[in-house]
Amino acid sequence: MRTQVGIIGAGPAGLLLSQLLALQGIESVVLERHDRAYIEQRVRAGVLEHGSAQTLREAGVGARMDELGMAHGGTELRFMRRRHRIDFEQLTGRGITVYGQQEIVKDLLAARIGAGGDIRFEVQGVELAGLDTDRPTCRFVAAGEQHQLECDVVVGADGFHGVSRGYLPNPTVYERHYPFAWLGILAEAPPSSHELIYARHEDGFALHSMRTPHIIRMYLQVRPDEDLAQWSDERIWTELHTRLSTDDGFKLTEGPLLDKGITPMRSFVCTPMQHGRLFLAGDAAHIVPPTGAKGMNLAMADIRVLAHALGGYYADGRTDLLAAYTETALHRVWRAMHFSWWMTTMLHVDPDEDEFGHQLALSQLEYVASSRAMEASLAENYTGLPYSQGWSYR
Amino acid sequence: MRTQVGIIGAGPAGLLLSQLLALQGIESVVLERHDRAYIEQRVRAGVLEHGSAQTLREAGVGARMDELGMAHGGTELRFMRRRHRIDFEQLTGRGITVYGQQEIVKDLLAARIGAGGDIRFEVQGVELAGLDTDRPTCRFVAAGEQHQLECDVVVGADGFHGVSRGYLPNPTVYERHYPFAWLGILAEAPPSSHELIYARHEDGFALHSMRTPHIIRMYLQVRPDEDLAQWSDERIWTELHTRLSTDDGFKLTEGPLLDKGITPMRSFVCTPMQHGRLFLAGDAAHIVPPTGAKGMNLAMADIRVLAHALGGYYADGRTDLLAAYTETALHRVWRAMHFSWWMTTMLHVDPDEDEFGHQLALSQLEYVASSRAMEASLAENYTGLPYSQGWSYR
Repeated sequence: MRTQVGIIGAGPAGLLLSQLLALQGIESVVLERHDRAYIEQRVRAGVLEHGSAQTLREAGVGARMDELGMAHGGTELRFMRRRHRIDFEQLTGRGITVYGQQEIVKDLLAARIGAGGDIRFEVQGVELAGLDTDRPTCRFVAAGEQHQLECDVVVGADGFHGVSRGYLPNPTVYERHYPFAWLGILAEAPPSSHELIYARHEDGFALHSMRTPHIIRMYLQVRPDEDLAQWSDERIWTELHTRLSTDDGFKLTEGPLLDKGITPMRSFVCTPMQHGRLFLAGDAAHIVPPTGAKGMNLAMADIRVLAHALGGYYADGRTDLLAAYTETALHRVWRAMHFSWWMTTMLHVDPDEDEFGHQLALSQLEYVASSRAMEASLAENYTGLPYSQGWSYR
Repeated sequence: MRTQVGIIGAGPAGLLLSQLLALQGIESVVLERHDRAYIEQRVRAGVLEHGSAQTLREAGVGARMDELGMAHGGTELRFMRRRHRIDFEQLTGRGITVYGQQEIVKDLLAARIGAGGDIRFEVQGVELAGLDTDRPTCRFVAAGEQHQLECDVVVGADGFHGVSRGYLPNPTVYERHYPFAWLGILAEAPPSSHELIYARHEDGFALHSMRTPHIIRMYLQVRPDEDLAQWSDERIWTELHTRLSTDDGFKLTEGPLLDKGITPMRSFVCTPMQHGRLFLAGDAAHIVPPTGAKGMNLAMADIRVLAHALGGYYADGRTDLLAAYTETALHRVWRAMHFSWWMTTMLHVDPDEDEFGHQLALSQLEYVASSRAMEASLAENYTGLPYSQGWSYR
């Protein structure tokens, strides 16, 4: 079996790459360990930067997003029982789109499979070889049989726990673990606010978010080793009410819980993001804490760089763009790393911090809420800084 | 001996208060432990916010500052051997004035003494009493004799090591020590750049500054327990050349050293800043690391609040403004605390930080240098945010 670009992982990154390559006439095969139903239903990220939404439109998969996604022109910071809205539209001329990752996966799968794209599900035991050569291979098992995929290039878009990163011979890793985690719930209730609410309360962070006009996604800061069994639905709602309460009487609408889980908080960067003919993208190479809503957007930004570089390689035989992939991508990666760390430390109550640290975080929040310059900084990062280049080589 | 306001400390804060009170017809006596020559020559801060310079003009002591002070319309950030100018004037419409603290002290002393103001030098053993009453007293020794000063109000502007803060019965203290210090030199050489240069180098922070067109003031990040004896003039210049070097060939002009010393780096806030008839101002109540050039400016901002509140007390018998002093002043104090911490952590190499932390600091610098919003944030803090009220009650 042979293709031009072998892609490990059918998340938003891998599928978007397959789509952007197809639009440039470049073949790919996508290998995914889960089945289609699983990845089409897995609830993960849900905030699209202005540029990410635009990329999906340019990729020809924006129609359902534009129909079902929720356009938000701002967000709310809440602290000391007060509300402060950051008006993205006014500050940057851009907004965000709330649209679940699993919906993007559905749209991309429908497009790729509809166009005859080759996506292999329930693939096991992926092994890479020949990455130093110009004919790398992916060996894998599907339906009990061993296969071998010969490629020109392999892209590892298989997430933080994927196998691809293990093939970098000697990477440098930058990492930080935060002394807290997020307890997330999905509930059947209408959003209690039109936009997202990021709240810092003395008990910890809380986030009011949504996936559809009928489904809310809420988060609570908890300990990293928190036992989910200790969190009854009642306790979760009580804590959400407490942390989101305001002096002007904010009301949070409850509803039946559809799901709950705990997410650790970590910053992680692996560099270089490439070795020979292997290129990593998205969570395979870097992780941000979710407070800045940057994870999926950063993965899509990596893919734009890769799609452009691969376009140049196939159209003109250029290898310089591929050689510069890590350097090009890391610029945005570190911006998102810093922004995500900044939002996280400002909005969470760090149990390891002293009182001076807590006051610093509050003074920073007060400042963001009182300075147009800082509002603009938050807004430009949240809605996404401009890309340095287009995704298409031509 | 009797006065309306007893002021402990003839630094810029204490003397400015005496001057602003005199302009409102309020009497004061200033008690200073050093002699006049000492405080007129002690080299300390040298950057005036736009509003601080304006306050000195309104106080009638701006003439020499306007003649000898150096107006700066921006500053330079230097990192990765590159230069980036922050254009204060363009970003905020305001600039800063470089003018030594000892010159401000000279100007204020000349004004007060010229107008018959009562400034006592070489005062020892200050003790306060009756702070809970409406007739507090300052006892002190001068020329070997015991004196007692009866006042309506006592203002402690006697610095971090002064006695005043000790009279707060139960203050809350917020504090942070940084794992580095500044080695500062004064040298007889013309500035090598028209404006200040804040440099982050892998060996640590360096600052190029000046006091006059012929005297430069330079700083190097060193260990908190650094032994000054280990720093020959030659070693200091070598390290300054290294940390300030750029790819475009920056040249640092050397000259004979006039002074060298080591300054610890600390953030400190004491609250409340008042008790009964005692009010603290400036370093007596709070300390910032010097990176943001906020210490003297914050002291002057405290004094503006106090001058206004005391004006209201004597003009109309209002006690509410004095009662609100801490709350009013702390708003600006915490802004400066955060800004000073932000500049400090961004520009210093923290030996306790991991590689992720170093990369965060660099990504923040890159961001400041690439975002107009962040440039504006730095500029508005550095040149000074607007005051919430005038210094004069009328």
